[in-house]
Amino acid sequence: MVTGKSLIGGTWEEGKGTLFSSFNPLTNNKIKDYKGVNTAQINNALDEAQKAYFIYKTIDFDKRANFIDAIANEIEALGDELLKICNEETGLGIPRLTGERTRTCGQLRSFANLIREGHWQQARIDTAIPDREPVPRTDIRRVLMPLGPVAVFSASNFPLAFSVLGGDTASALAAGNPVIVKAHPSHPGTSELSAIAIERAMNNSGISKGVFSMLQGSDSSVSIDLVNHPKLKSVGFTGSTKVGRILFNLGASRSTPIPVFAEMGSANPLFILPQAIENNGSSIAEGLANSITLGTGQFCTKPGLVFTIKSEHSEKFNNDLKNAIEQVKLGPFLNSGIKSNLSSKLEEFGKDENITTFTGGTVEAPTIVLTSASIFMQNPTLEKEVFGPAALIVECGNIEEMIETTMVLGGHLTATIHTDKDPESVILKTILEEKVGRIVYNGFPTGVEVCPSMHHGGPYPSSTYGNATSVGTAAIERFCKVVCYQNAPQEHLPEALKNQNPRSIMRLVNGKYSISSL
Amino acid sequence: MVTGKSLIGGTWEEGKGTLFSSFNPLTNNKIKDYKGVNTAQINNALDEAQKAYFIYKTIDFDKRANFIDAIANEIEALGDELLKICNEETGLGIPRLTGERTRTCGQLRSFANLIREGHWQQARIDTAIPDREPVPRTDIRRVLMPLGPVAVFSASNFPLAFSVLGGDTASALAAGNPVIVKAHPSHPGTSELSAIAIERAMNNSGISKGVFSMLQGSDSSVSIDLVNHPKLKSVGFTGSTKVGRILFNLGASRSTPIPVFAEMGSANPLFILPQAIENNGSSIAEGLANSITLGTGQFCTKPGLVFTIKSEHSEKFNNDLKNAIEQVKLGPFLNSGIKSNLSSKLEEFGKDENITTFTGGTVEAPTIVLTSASIFMQNPTLEKEVFGPAALIVECGNIEEMIETTMVLGGHLTATIHTDKDPESVILKTILEEKVGRIVYNGFPTGVEVCPSMHHGGPYPSSTYGNATSVGTAAIERFCKVVCYQNAPQEHLPEALKNQNPRSIMRLVNGKYSISSL
Repeated sequence: MVTGKSLIGGTWEEGKGTLFSSFNPLTNNKIKDYKGVNTAQINNALDEAQKAYFIYKTIDFDKRANFIDAIANEIEALGDELLKICNEETGLGIPRLTGERTRTCGQLRSFANLIREGHWQQARIDTAIPDREPVPRTDIRRVLMPLGPVAVFSASNFPLAFSVLGGDTASALAAGNPVIVKAHPSHPGTSELSAIAIERAMNNSGISKGVFSMLQGSDSSVSIDLVNHPKLKSVGFTGSTKVGRILFNLGASRSTPIPVFAEMGSANPLFILPQAIENNGSSIAEGLANSITLGTGQFCTKPGLVFTIKSEHSEKFNNDLKNAIEQVKLGPFLNSGIKSNLSSKLEEFGKDENITTFTGGTVEAPTIVLTSASIFMQNPTLEKEVFGPAALIVECGNIEEMIETTMVLGGHLTATIHTDKDPESVILKTILEEKVGRIVYNGFPTGVEVCPSMHHGGPYPSSTYGNATSVGTAAIERFCKVVCYQNAPQEHLPEALKNQNPRSIMRLVNGKYSISSL
Repeated sequence: MVTGKSLIGGTWEEGKGTLFSSFNPLTNNKIKDYKGVNTAQINNALDEAQKAYFIYKTIDFDKRANFIDAIANEIEALGDELLKICNEETGLGIPRLTGERTRTCGQLRSFANLIREGHWQQARIDTAIPDREPVPRTDIRRVLMPLGPVAVFSASNFPLAFSVLGGDTASALAAGNPVIVKAHPSHPGTSELSAIAIERAMNNSGISKGVFSMLQGSDSSVSIDLVNHPKLKSVGFTGSTKVGRILFNLGASRSTPIPVFAEMGSANPLFILPQAIENNGSSIAEGLANSITLGTGQFCTKPGLVFTIKSEHSEKFNNDLKNAIEQVKLGPFLNSGIKSNLSSKLEEFGKDENITTFTGGTVEAPTIVLTSASIFMQNPTLEKEVFGPAALIVECGNIEEMIETTMVLGGHLTATIHTDKDPESVILKTILEEKVGRIVYNGFPTGVEVCPSMHHGGPYPSSTYGNATSVGTAAIERFCKVVCYQNAPQEHLPEALKNQNPRSIMRLVNGKYSISSL
């Protein structure tokens, strides 16, 4: 079923660029050869996207919402074939991938509903005051609108939910933008099937073919050409800090800069306060062992740093964590690069006299390493994300040292506080608001809920734009621009700004929220 | 009354950097010598800002709002002294400056009201669903919060409304951020008096002194040190494309990048469609003459490009515009740099055989130059802003050529359409939505209303972030970050996210808008 081609503005084409192959991460056997696209093919995708944009941005919202729903339906219609190929390419296992498919379809449908409701457009209206002194006020209205072609860089670790069919694609399409996905070379077959689902939805929904392209490629030149393309307006990326920053720099240094919304992962510090460790240490240890190893630790929200205060209770906690995590049977790594990076990192830890390997120490088993807060503060590299089933426990001498250590942290996606009425938790929270995008209480950061309140982003280096989220309905705001109309005739206004408000969109009218017509 | 000092974290200090002087633009006489700050003084301002931030971000919203109101009151309490010094430094005239002071105080009070209402925080709550299958949903809530120290670069052309006391300062303080203003060297005395008003408001409102600093300086090193400072979180700038882009690049290339929200002006294309020019040509000409010359053309929304379709009506319109604009008596230029830049530009126009100088041609009088659409399309530099009382009429052969010309335009703050039921206006509007932040119908772009619906920003190169506005209450969003709380105890949540909602803040609760308590 998989051809190895790219979908370029509605046409399936053999790539004319660099050869690469897909592998089965369980066996390391090659599955299939692919050819990446070349510059001319990238240009073609952007030309088609630009042509399709003016039609796509103005189609009826119900039609756009039905199209997004149709993508979810087509994913489900692909049935077991999608899960089978995806499992072959990622080794994540059918149960996990079945759950991820549910999440992916749920995400798409939540964006379809968002479009139907219309609130996302943040419509604002200030009506004219012709007799105002000293000068009259004219009618002014503003709304969010689509931007134009958006590039999406797929992640390796969620081959459905953060890939071709993921939240970046869903939110960019929902806002009214054409999307060009750069598929991740770890799962090109999954990407092709995903693109087929979108193509079918486009055909059935009467959407112009330029609205979606899926480009195969493993070569950095594909990414560079894409981000530099003058017709591109915005970029969504999930991956490493290194690559995210390279793309961000490209976007910022164009003659017309564009934002690169890169979600680059983090070490997700987790704090266990004295009363919590004393009263709930065992259950925290059990939950933490699970969170560190979920998906073989290949989640951007994996808790990689654990801060405790050294005491008899923390000693017991360490042993509980060791015992719990040693029970976990690891799944495979997504690709050999992740495995070898982790392996070198663990080796480094093993050689460092200031770090104790408490359990594990190789890629065969989960690893827990230990150090002191003073060593941690002297070595900024210890704060960096270690991708895989490993975590560093940082033992603080007392609560003051824990707070001091927290103050020097950089940006992370999440932080977690385990507290049992510990009075210091408020201070910790106040500091962590400056360090992370999401603060979790008495839980674990893995398992990112898809809902309007979710924020999956955080201060640099966890993201390039801390206010942007790549999960939840607020993700749509990344791919919108603001347009303001002054004294416009009704027939020129977008639906959300007309006097009549048949969808009962929430609008800020003369400074008051209202769902009424004018 | 003016000492020449800078206000650094609550202390008035003589600058230890480079000497510069203020001048009276009417007489060119020196008013006073100033010394800019040095690196150590900038570091000191940031250190004090950072210290004050944790207290300022958590004070009661009413206290913060009262502080912002108090600034407006203190401006008014400065009385004629402020207007006198400002007029001496800018030559803008007491009537204009009196109006600008009213606008400035109105802006501040609108942000104080915004803070009291609380809607600006975009609070979202998704409550727990403990019995959800397959996994329970935990309680998730998100809100906008302040960022930390913000730098504001004052503009020369609005010494009150876009300067020390302007919308950037007001919105950053309202969001809960300490502000460090880099004063514009064209009006340092006005800046000092403005800082005194803020200082008095801080003292009377019990606000920590590090919350506001005002730094004098004319040297680029002051700007560079400020934007590069590791404690700085965001920048607001109003000025030229050249300087805006330099600061944007600095912000983007830091080890931890920060956004530089630069509003860099534009040529604000204005389109007159066939029926409009035939039926309303004379009144459009009169209004346009006024808009081009308002404030001696030194507004970022001055219409600098006028597109017409060549006909007997456009000939008449040109003459009407010439006659109207020749009646206008120009005010002074804000500084000698603006005057000499304009002079060279007009000289360039005069020498260009493809451009006809229709009236004016020197800085002594308003200038209208003419060219054809085909020449315009061949010379991208003709699209650039000419700051001062000058405009270029671009004559198109027909409506198709007008649309073709519109398609190749870059980003501008505004565009204006004059239409009298002209059917082509819809096509024009659909293209202009991609080119500008605000579309004005049958009016003029100067006179930017301060209201929730205003958008003063546009695609690059008019702004660095097209969705950011520097005018109106939405300006506050530039200086906020998102924080999300998962399963947090009530006492850890910011006021806007607690179950009780005594301010009746509009919140998105489980996907529905509500002002109720939970």
